Amino acid sequence: MKKAIVLLSGGLDSTTVLAHAKKQGYEVYALSFYYGQRHQFELEAAKKIAQYYQITEHKIATIDLRLFGGSALTDEIAVPKGRSEAEMDAAIPVTYVPARNTIFLSFGLAYAEVVGAKNIFIGVNAVDYSGYPDCRPEYIAAYEKMANLATKAGVEAAEQLRIHTPLIDLTKSEIIQMGLDLGVDYGMTFTCYDPDTIGRACGVCDACILRLKGFAGLGKKDAIDYTNG
Amino acid sequence: MKKAIVLLSGGLDSTTVLAHAKKQGYEVYALSFYYGQRHQFELEAAKKIAQYYQITEHKIATIDLRLFGGSALTDEIAVPKGRSEAEMDAAIPVTYVPARNTIFLSFGLAYAEVVGAKNIFIGVNAVDYSGYPDCRPEYIAAYEKMANLATKAGVEAAEQLRIHTPLIDLTKSEIIQMGLDLGVDYGMTFTCYDPDTIGRACGVCDACILRLKGFAGLGKKDAIDYTNG
Repeated sequence: MKKAIVLLSGGLDSTTVLAHAKKQGYEVYALSFYYGQRHQFELEAAKKIAQYYQITEHKIATIDLRLFGGSALTDEIAVPKGRSEAEMDAAIPVTYVPARNTIFLSFGLAYAEVVGAKNIFIGVNAVDYSGYPDCRPEYIAAYEKMANLATKAGVEAAEQLRIHTPLIDLTKSEIIQMGLDLGVDYGMTFTCYDPDTIGRACGVCDACILRLKGFAGLGKKDAIDYTNG
Repeated sequence: MKKAIVLLSGGLDSTTVLAHAKKQGYEVYALSFYYGQRHQFELEAAKKIAQYYQITEHKIATIDLRLFGGSALTDEIAVPKGRSEAEMDAAIPVTYVPARNTIFLSFGLAYAEVVGAKNIFIGVNAVDYSGYPDCRPEYIAAYEKMANLATKAGVEAAEQLRIHTPLIDLTKSEIIQMGLDLGVDYGMTFTCYDPDTIGRACGVCDACILRLKGFAGLGKKDAIDYTNG
């Protein structure tokens, strides 16, 4: 059975990726991060999801991205609310965490090397990507090339390491449809950048807006609670 | 004044790189890591060195590489002793920490993005490199390419981010000569993989052997204490 590292945030995208990797027959090692994000509810979701899918191992790496600051997700910078998609597309938003996917993939690479996995799955998406540079296909291709030069495994093994991005070309609606076809229960997932104290989604941050639009596009109702819903 | 991130372990190589970056006129932001290494003396050395060079800022990122295991530097795996250089060159050693430079550079990239630095200095070396894959020029070139696709800075700015590796083609003796010409006090630096409880170098791990050979090649005496010296 082929081993795969799945980067699992506990959100809609990464949960779909996990279900996809399982369906493809991979033995899954999931990796989540506590990186000082203001919303810790997604980590609780990640734990439940990992348990539900009975994966081989789930590790949570603590990495202090607050050390550098610079993002609304880790700092006392306000999360933008009620933006149109045009506004989201206009510039890289303040919710961008500097080098986040690069750091996450690098931990995934270390994990892959230790367990002998040749596959890393990440739920990046270049369509509804909120303007993050590290969600683009050219970035992923460059990362994969670097990763194969970086590691003992890449140097010694015949089989090259691959970064899998099954969602990269899909709209949010297409991602949700893919997950529903795989039997994903999206009620387990967590997306909001700025939930209330009991973990209900705000419904108006960029992440909520894209999620709600995804369900609306399919004519489906989202299973999670929204404070303003 | 151009800003630079310098990855500073507190060892001989990274201290030489710091002195070099200062001499070149960069405003230096140093970044060190506590990654569960068995020897914390090098972090103490890094703090002293950062202070000595009166750099703009010194951050220490805590990253739990023990989470994955797989290296003699972070696990209860024995550090090899008394090996010949042929033995060191024969295979990637157990002191290799999976994806370490990739993780370190990724944190450097986040730091660079936050302070607006376009330069990252790292003391990797492909000559006396102890067989680590992530010390080779082709790895660094691939990392630089990826980094420019990864970041807001790379996307929005005209000036590309550069990974500087001033030591990459130098022997250990040449590195030490470079440092001596820059006025580096190598008595402040720390190199050993397996020091005693008061921080004296063992003299027989791969790192000590390469360091001692470097000084011997110049006909100089190393200023630090060795338990077997």
